[in-house]
Amino acid sequence: MALLVQKYGGTSVGSVERIDLVAAKVAAARERGHQIVVVVSAMSGETDRLLKLARSVDPRPQPRELDQMLATGEQVTIALLAMALARRGVPARSYQGWQVAIQTDQAYSKARIRNIQTERLLADCKAGTVPVVAGFQGVDEAGNVTTLGRGGSDTTGVALAAALKADECQIYTDVDGVYTTDPRVEPKARRLDRITFEEMLELASLGSKVLQIRSVEFAGKYKVPLRVLSTFQEGPGTLITLEEHSMEEPLISGIAFNRDEAQLTVSGVPDRPGIAAAILGPIGEANIEVDMIVQNVGADGTTDFTFTVHRNDHERAVEIARRVAQELRAKGVRSAVDIVKVSLVGVGMRSHAGIAAKMFRVLAEEGINIRMISTSEIKISVVIEDKYLELSVRALHKAFDLAESRIV
Amino acid sequence: MALLVQKYGGTSVGSVERIDLVAAKVAAARERGHQIVVVVSAMSGETDRLLKLARSVDPRPQPRELDQMLATGEQVTIALLAMALARRGVPARSYQGWQVAIQTDQAYSKARIRNIQTERLLADCKAGTVPVVAGFQGVDEAGNVTTLGRGGSDTTGVALAAALKADECQIYTDVDGVYTTDPRVEPKARRLDRITFEEMLELASLGSKVLQIRSVEFAGKYKVPLRVLSTFQEGPGTLITLEEHSMEEPLISGIAFNRDEAQLTVSGVPDRPGIAAAILGPIGEANIEVDMIVQNVGADGTTDFTFTVHRNDHERAVEIARRVAQELRAKGVRSAVDIVKVSLVGVGMRSHAGIAAKMFRVLAEEGINIRMISTSEIKISVVIEDKYLELSVRALHKAFDLAESRIV
Repeated sequence: MALLVQKYGGTSVGSVERIDLVAAKVAAARERGHQIVVVVSAMSGETDRLLKLARSVDPRPQPRELDQMLATGEQVTIALLAMALARRGVPARSYQGWQVAIQTDQAYSKARIRNIQTERLLADCKAGTVPVVAGFQGVDEAGNVTTLGRGGSDTTGVALAAALKADECQIYTDVDGVYTTDPRVEPKARRLDRITFEEMLELASLGSKVLQIRSVEFAGKYKVPLRVLSTFQEGPGTLITLEEHSMEEPLISGIAFNRDEAQLTVSGVPDRPGIAAAILGPIGEANIEVDMIVQNVGADGTTDFTFTVHRNDHERAVEIARRVAQELRAKGVRSAVDIVKVSLVGVGMRSHAGIAAKMFRVLAEEGINIRMISTSEIKISVVIEDKYLELSVRALHKAFDLAESRIV
Repeated sequence: MALLVQKYGGTSVGSVERIDLVAAKVAAARERGHQIVVVVSAMSGETDRLLKLARSVDPRPQPRELDQMLATGEQVTIALLAMALARRGVPARSYQGWQVAIQTDQAYSKARIRNIQTERLLADCKAGTVPVVAGFQGVDEAGNVTTLGRGGSDTTGVALAAALKADECQIYTDVDGVYTTDPRVEPKARRLDRITFEEMLELASLGSKVLQIRSVEFAGKYKVPLRVLSTFQEGPGTLITLEEHSMEEPLISGIAFNRDEAQLTVSGVPDRPGIAAAILGPIGEANIEVDMIVQNVGADGTTDFTFTVHRNDHERAVEIARRVAQELRAKGVRSAVDIVKVSLVGVGMRSHAGIAAKMFRVLAEEGINIRMISTSEIKISVVIEDKYLELSVRALHKAFDLAESRIV
C-alpha cells in the first residue's frame, strides 16, 4: 500500500464526463489498496473566463481581489470531484487552500507555499476518505486568499506529496509523458521513460509545458518521485527521479523551446562595476522575471547588456530600461519580440566536450543566425529569429539522434 | 454620518455594467459622508448554473460539497465589486463568509448564523475602506463552508447590520419597494411607504418575493431599520419599522400569495393526543418545513390532519406521511399540488372584526371554493385552486380598497 498524491489538470477535469473519468481512476487506485490524495485544477478555460471577467471591470485588477476570484475555479472542481467520488461509493471531502491549510506568503498571483498542515488530510486517509484539494491556491497569514500563479496546481501536488511524505506524486495531464521535444514541432519526438530533476528543470523552465518549473524544484528539493502521465491513455508515463542515467545513455535528453520571451539590449553602457545591478534592480522591483542575461564587452569602454523577459512584460521592461539607460548615460535600448529560445538539455553533456560546437554548426548549416547564447552545466540555449523555430528543432533532433530508442 | 449596510441582489450585479452601477451608488453614498458595508449576491443565474452542474454529476449532490461549490457565486461578485470600487478610487476589500468570519451551524444549504466577528469590518470602516462581504454563506465551527439557503444574502445583510449596530440596512433589488400585492397579478398594486416588521414578516413568509423571511425576523429581533429600494430607479423605497400605523390607516396592508406549496391530508386518524407530533415529527426530522397546519375533528372519533409543505418536498412528504399513516392506522393520505395560498395581511385587522367574513364573502361571490383556512393575529390565509389566483387577488384588492392612497 502506497500513499499517492494524484494531480489532475484542467483538461482532465474539463467536463462533467471527464470529472467522472477522474473519479473512476481515483476509485481504481484506491481499490488497488493505495491511499490517495487528489489535487485538481480549474476546469479548462475557467481561469481564462474569470480573468477576462475581471479585466472587463478593470484592465489592471487589484491583485488581492483577482486571487480571491480566481480561487473559485478550483473550488468548483474539488466539490464536483468529491460529489462524483461519493456517487461511486468512495467517501471524499473537498478542501480549499485555507481549509487544509496551505499557508503561503502574501505575493498575490505568485505566492509561495510556506507550510502545509497535514492533520486533516492524514486523518482522512486513515479513515478511508479521499481528500480532494484545490490546487493553485493558498492562504496568507492574515487570512487572504492567494494563488500560486499559472500551473500552480502542480506545485500544490508536489508540496502536498512532500508534506505528506507520499510515495509518489503523479501528475495527470493530456500528454503521456515527457518527450525529447514538442511532437507538434517534430513528429519523431520520443517519450522518455525517465529523466533527472535537473534535466526536467531545464526542460520546464525552457518552455516544455508539461510541468510547472516550481513543482520540479520542489520535487527535487524534497526528493519526491514525480511521474507525468496521461489521464486518457494507459501507460507508465515519465518518471522524474534523482537517479543519474547509465553510462550508455546519449548526451542529450531533449530540445526545449520558448516562444514567450522578448529580448532587450541596453547598448553603450559605461563598462564599470554595478551596471548589471543598476539595470536589473528596477526590473526586479517591478516584479518582472528575467530569464537569459548576457553581457558583451565593447571596444570603447562601454558594454552591451542583453536580457530576456516574458513577452507580456516586454513593454513595461522597455519603459524601465529606457529610464535606467538615461540615468546611466547609455546609448539606448533595443528590443525584439519576434524571437524564440531553443535549448539542448542533457546531464550527459557535463562530461562531453563539443556539444555546443556541434549545435552551432548544425544551425549554421541551416543558415540560422544566432542572436544570443547562454549555457549552463546541462543545457545550451540560443535565441534565434522565431521563423526558424521548426527548422532548428528538427535539425537538432536529427543531429543528436533523439528519435532513436535508448537504454534507460 | 451614518453606518449603512447595503445589500445588492443577483439582478443588481447581473453584469459587469451593473456591477459598475452598484460601485457608483456605493461611491456616491460614501461621498455623502456615510460609512458603507456592502453585501452582494451571486450574479443572477449563476447559482442555478452551479446547481445544474452539480446535479449533472449527482442528482442528489453531497450537501457539504454543494455548499462548497455554491459559495463561489458570491466570491466572484465580491471580488468584481471590490475591483470596480478600487477603479473609482474607493478603497475596498472583499470578504468571503469565513474571512469575516460569519459563523453558522452545520446545517448545509440552510445554515443559521450564530455569530459575526466585526473587528475587520469596523477597522476597514474606520480606515475609509469599504468592506464587500459575500452574502448567503458562512463557515461552521470545523471550518466547513455553509450556505444560508435561497435569498440568504438578505439575512447576511441584516445580520451584519445588527452586529455592526448599523443605522439602516438597505436591501437593493429590482423592485422599488413593497407593494400591496404583486403588480404582475394586479396592475393597480401600490407601493407602501412604510410597513411594520410583523406585516412584512407575514408578507414575506406568504410569498412576496421582495425579502427573505429570515432577514425580516432578524431585523425585527435586533430592531434594525430595513429599507427595500431599487438599484435602477431613484426613490425612497419602503421602510420596514417597529412603528405602528396611525389610527386612520386601512385595515389591510397587502395581499400575498404563494404558488410553491403542496397540500397533504392524513385522513381518518384516530383522534387522540400526540397525533400532530406523530405526523409532523418525522416530517421535521427529514428537514421538510411545514407551513399551514389544520386539524378537523371528524364525526367517528377520527380526525383529518392537513398541512402544507414546499412543492419541492411534496414527494418526500407524501412518502413519509404514508408510512406514518400506516403506523397510526389512519385511512389514508391525499395530496394536491394544483393549489395556491392567498393571504390578507395587516396589523389593522387586530382591532377590527369581520375581516375574515368579508374575505370569505368576496371569494364566494366569485364562486371560488376554499380548501383550507388558517389565521393569525394579523393575517388570514386561504388555500384555493391555483387557477383562481388572479381572480381572487384582484377581487380582494378591490374589495379592501388597496389601490386608494392612504395616510402613512
